[in-house]
Amino acid sequence: MQFNLKTTKREEIINITSQIQALVSRHSIKEGLCNIFIPHATAAVTINENCDEKVCEDFLEYLRKQIPKNCWKHDVVDGNGDAHVKASIIKPSITIPIQHNRLMLGKWQGIMFCEFNGPRDRTIIVNCLNTK
Amino acid sequence: MQFNLKTTKREEIINITSQIQALVSRHSIKEGLCNIFIPHATAAVTINENCDEKVCEDFLEYLRKQIPKNCWKHDVVDGNGDAHVKASIIKPSITIPIQHNRLMLGKWQGIMFCEFNGPRDRTIIVNCLNTK
Amino acid sequence: MQFNLKTTKREEIINITSQIQALVSRHSIKEGLCNIFIPHATAAVTINENCDEKVCEDFLEYLRKQIPKNCWKHDVVDGNGDAHVKASIIKPSITIPIQHNRLMLGKWQGIMFCEFNGPRDRTIIVNCLNTK
Repeated sequence: MQFNLKTTKREEIINITSQIQALVSRHSIKEGLCNIFIPHATAAVTINENCDEKVCEDFLEYLRKQIPKNCWKHDVVDGNGDAHVKASIIKPSITIPIQHNRLMLGKWQGIMFCEFNGPRDRTIIVNCLNTK
Repeated sequence: MQFNLKTTKREEIINITSQIQALVSRHSIKEGLCNIFIPHATAAVTINENCDEKVCEDFLEYLRKQIPKNCWKHDVVDGNGDAHVKASIIKPSITIPIQHNRLMLGKWQGIMFCEFNGPRDRTIIVNCLNTK
Repeated sequence: MQFNLKTTKREEIINITSQIQALVSRHSIKEGLCNIFIPHATAAVTINENCDEKVCEDFLEYLRKQIPKNCWKHDVVDGNGDAHVKASIIKPSITIPIQHNRLMLGKWQGIMFCEFNGPRDRTIIVNCLNTK
């Protein structure tokens, strides 16, 4: 299963928990796992606090300061060297347990798509499986 | 399956390999996978050297210096902005292969629970499955 | 399944996509997942751009600057403290979806073995499973 996402800024963090949960709910999984994979080399996926938007702003600001633009060997080719470093550190895959058709996320956890080189049309791949 | 952990400091790395292996051993898995998931937004899980305790001290000290306290937008809300950044970079999930009911960890690898905002009562979720 | 890799430098990034795809092709998987695990405490695995070699050089140079040699408590034991910090931040595991016996990687994505303390003989463990 997969779905698409249109990002609107060069860098942004987008909470995709509800889209993932909607796909998980199509299955009948008493106990299982859900893998989320981003098939792009300048985007990633992680989990972060889902309540105060400042948390994701802090995360993005940290990455921006640590991995600034315009100082990478790859920039000669297409100017997004920083986006590749960010994506390969955060990584494009995460696996989350499922119980009774629900993602077993903690109360404060949301699944966050990380755009590092937008705006672009992005794809999110979701695979669910029973472990019992 | 899941188990609880009581952390005792604001930040600490706790080797949880033996607890995970005990849960894996309850199954009969010739070849499979074990996913470990932390349902908290200020904690994470990784793998690190299991012998010299200084290795985990180095890891934590690196994160403390890179992601210091008291300089995040979220701190106005509850003062743990740094813990969220640390958790979303290390991420709360890891998947490890199993062979003949044993985690296929290297000799020097241990599974490390990362507390970034303790002391707290924490939960660790463990899912195992056969791949054959 | 597993295969071996001989690294030739202290630090290098090696594209292992073709070796992983060859192992995936031995199965008959319409829809599934592939987990890659590195059983070493000074190596890791991530995904990065597979075309311009400068991208992986940028990634490694970033880690070298952020996590320099010779300033870690563990260095008293064996001088590879930096390699452990790098490995536990990048982590030794990644899970990738499979469709019709092919890894569902994006056009620009390659699976990258990260050597942080070579040259050494390394092992890569690969587990595939059907999700349908």
